[in-house]
Amino acid sequence: MDETARRGRAMTRMRAEILEQPEALGGTIAALLPLAGEIAAVARGTRHVLFFARGTSDNAAVYGSYLIQTAAGRLASLGSPSVATAYHSRIDLSGVLAVGLSQSGRTEEIVETLAWAAGRGARTIGITNAASSPLAQVADLALVTRAGAERAVPATKTFTCQLAALAVLAIGLGAELDAGLLRSLPEVIAGQLAGARDGAADGTGLAGLDDVVADLARADGVVVSARGPAYSAALELALKLKEACYLHALGISYADLQHGPIAVVDSRTPAIVMAAASGPTLAAAVGLARRVTAAGARAYAIGGGPVLAAACDRAVPAPELPEWLAPVALIVPGQLLTEALARRLGLDPDHPRGLSKITQTT
Amino acid sequence: MDETARRGRAMTRMRAEILEQPEALGGTIAALLPLAGEIAAVARGTRHVLFFARGTSDNAAVYGSYLIQTAAGRLASLGSPSVATAYHSRIDLSGVLAVGLSQSGRTEEIVETLAWAAGRGARTIGITNAASSPLAQVADLALVTRAGAERAVPATKTFTCQLAALAVLAIGLGAELDAGLLRSLPEVIAGQLAGARDGAADGTGLAGLDDVVADLARADGVVVSARGPAYSAALELALKLKEACYLHALGISYADLQHGPIAVVDSRTPAIVMAAASGPTLAAAVGLARRVTAAGARAYAIGGGPVLAAACDRAVPAPELPEWLAPVALIVPGQLLTEALARRLGLDPDHPRGLSKITQTT
Repeated sequence: MDETARRGRAMTRMRAEILEQPEALGGTIAALLPLAGEIAAVARGTRHVLFFARGTSDNAAVYGSYLIQTAAGRLASLGSPSVATAYHSRIDLSGVLAVGLSQSGRTEEIVETLAWAAGRGARTIGITNAASSPLAQVADLALVTRAGAERAVPATKTFTCQLAALAVLAIGLGAELDAGLLRSLPEVIAGQLAGARDGAADGTGLAGLDDVVADLARADGVVVSARGPAYSAALELALKLKEACYLHALGISYADLQHGPIAVVDSRTPAIVMAAASGPTLAAAVGLARRVTAAGARAYAIGGGPVLAAACDRAVPAPELPEWLAPVALIVPGQLLTEALARRLGLDPDHPRGLSKITQTT
Repeated sequence: MDETARRGRAMTRMRAEILEQPEALGGTIAALLPLAGEIAAVARGTRHVLFFARGTSDNAAVYGSYLIQTAAGRLASLGSPSVATAYHSRIDLSGVLAVGLSQSGRTEEIVETLAWAAGRGARTIGITNAASSPLAQVADLALVTRAGAERAVPATKTFTCQLAALAVLAIGLGAELDAGLLRSLPEVIAGQLAGARDGAADGTGLAGLDDVVADLARADGVVVSARGPAYSAALELALKLKEACYLHALGISYADLQHGPIAVVDSRTPAIVMAAASGPTLAAAVGLARRVTAAGARAYAIGGGPVLAAACDRAVPAPELPEWLAPVALIVPGQLLTEALARRLGLDPDHPRGLSKITQTT
């Protein structure tokens, strides 16, 4: 049998979309970086960035919030859409840059919240993968990602493209981040995915990852933990595992984990620890991994370099990127893990039970 | 055997502290309501409330954030302590009222973050159960709850007293909330706990709750969901179930649940839906319960009145309180449920594995 045809038939949409990320990121970064000046113009006079999103987009917003606070010197936080949509609160939002994220641009709750924010005095930016969507239309400025159509229900390439858009947003807000490094990101991710692209479609194709898939197929649940910008990738991996593998996956920061939930790790509930290979939270990641293994649970590293790998039972390396770009490379193994685990559990990763691609909140 | 002695020996510290809540709340409300003027003075010139907390205190902050945004007309959000402690970010926080919460007042990360916020231009308030703690000393104003010593590791009475302190904070910030109703809260909670106080210590003593305990003893995991101010109680119940029962418990808003995690509910993963008996999110709570049962999972109501009860397999009533006060009455059955479930699973609720009473983040 022709090898390409065999792989083609075996490949889920989710896996195909994971592999499309270098191209999606390249198109997104090329399209959005020239808008840095427009971002600065829209943000003029504002001091506080307030994100509104749900699900995967909310996990991307966590990345944006850390990036803006640590690199752009502005306060950023996540808002509650219900304050607008259920409570119609009359808050003064002058001085606020409200940023709404929705892959489809059609999540009514987010569109309505951004319109509310504008009415309360905020400037607004929409981040969406659909140029002609209501979200793009309601915002003062739209940052339209170029992920192409995403058909698998679990978002993959639209998530990493949102991260790229948020890096551009931070640059537009004055963050001293190397735009050249951002431009080279698609190539780095292409290198990371080379094994997955060339390998057989029944595994992940990433070093170390198939063993983690095999372990997780026997687990009762899993804790996924990180801190700083990488926390967004941990939340996103936990969400993917819940939606596509129906696994009880808890995404949590190292700090919050130690305030109670650490009690759930045991021989049947391992922890995945995600970290950049450098940065001020790496030491804490290593400490967490040691605490997990000391409690009799297994720990798996994604990224974090050799120090984190040494503290864990299994380790999946990630390309070495500065902490602010690392989340993109950390979620890629998480996406491949989710897709392979779903198939191993006999599930269709493209069509999880009870979900559709555009979610409306009642 | 003397009935009182039998009950006394059988009672865990956690259960004793749950039962102490009317007194703890009464002392706290009486001590803090007179400080409303001081709160207003400290907050003068600020527009945005930024909470810093971890674990149970973070769940209380969620309540504060909703209350301030829906009743006091100010923007409020949760901050990330790592922005201060790991990244030493130089954000301009003028115009911000930073509120740090820590039961012990000795969680170094929160103390350090509040000191950082003051250095960045914020006004500061500390909410703690320890008058002479570092948190009380570092803040411009300390709201000291009167819960008395809490010895069980899972926080109960200190959580509800934090909620009461946050209601006073909202009143100090101009929320039009009925202080008389807040003063009557201890009596309402005493009435709610009457059955638990008089009943045998081997059950919860609350109508409908023992059946939920029996069901959950056989569950693989549980989803706990709410929206608006009650979301704080859902997060807190999920945390309690994780720390004391080692149950995979996901605390999530109705809205976020529908963006992926709804896939985890099934015949072995039920959902607990918490809601006030009135308010703009009740209809969505009923809708969620119907979606859960349609997916073949069991749904349990805590609160939400007869409409929510009718949509669920089992229902635990809660005293009728307005939406802004309901979270206190909603978490009480959650606390009793956690304590009884831990014992039923052969665990010691007072001393969960891997946890101590004061948590320091590395």
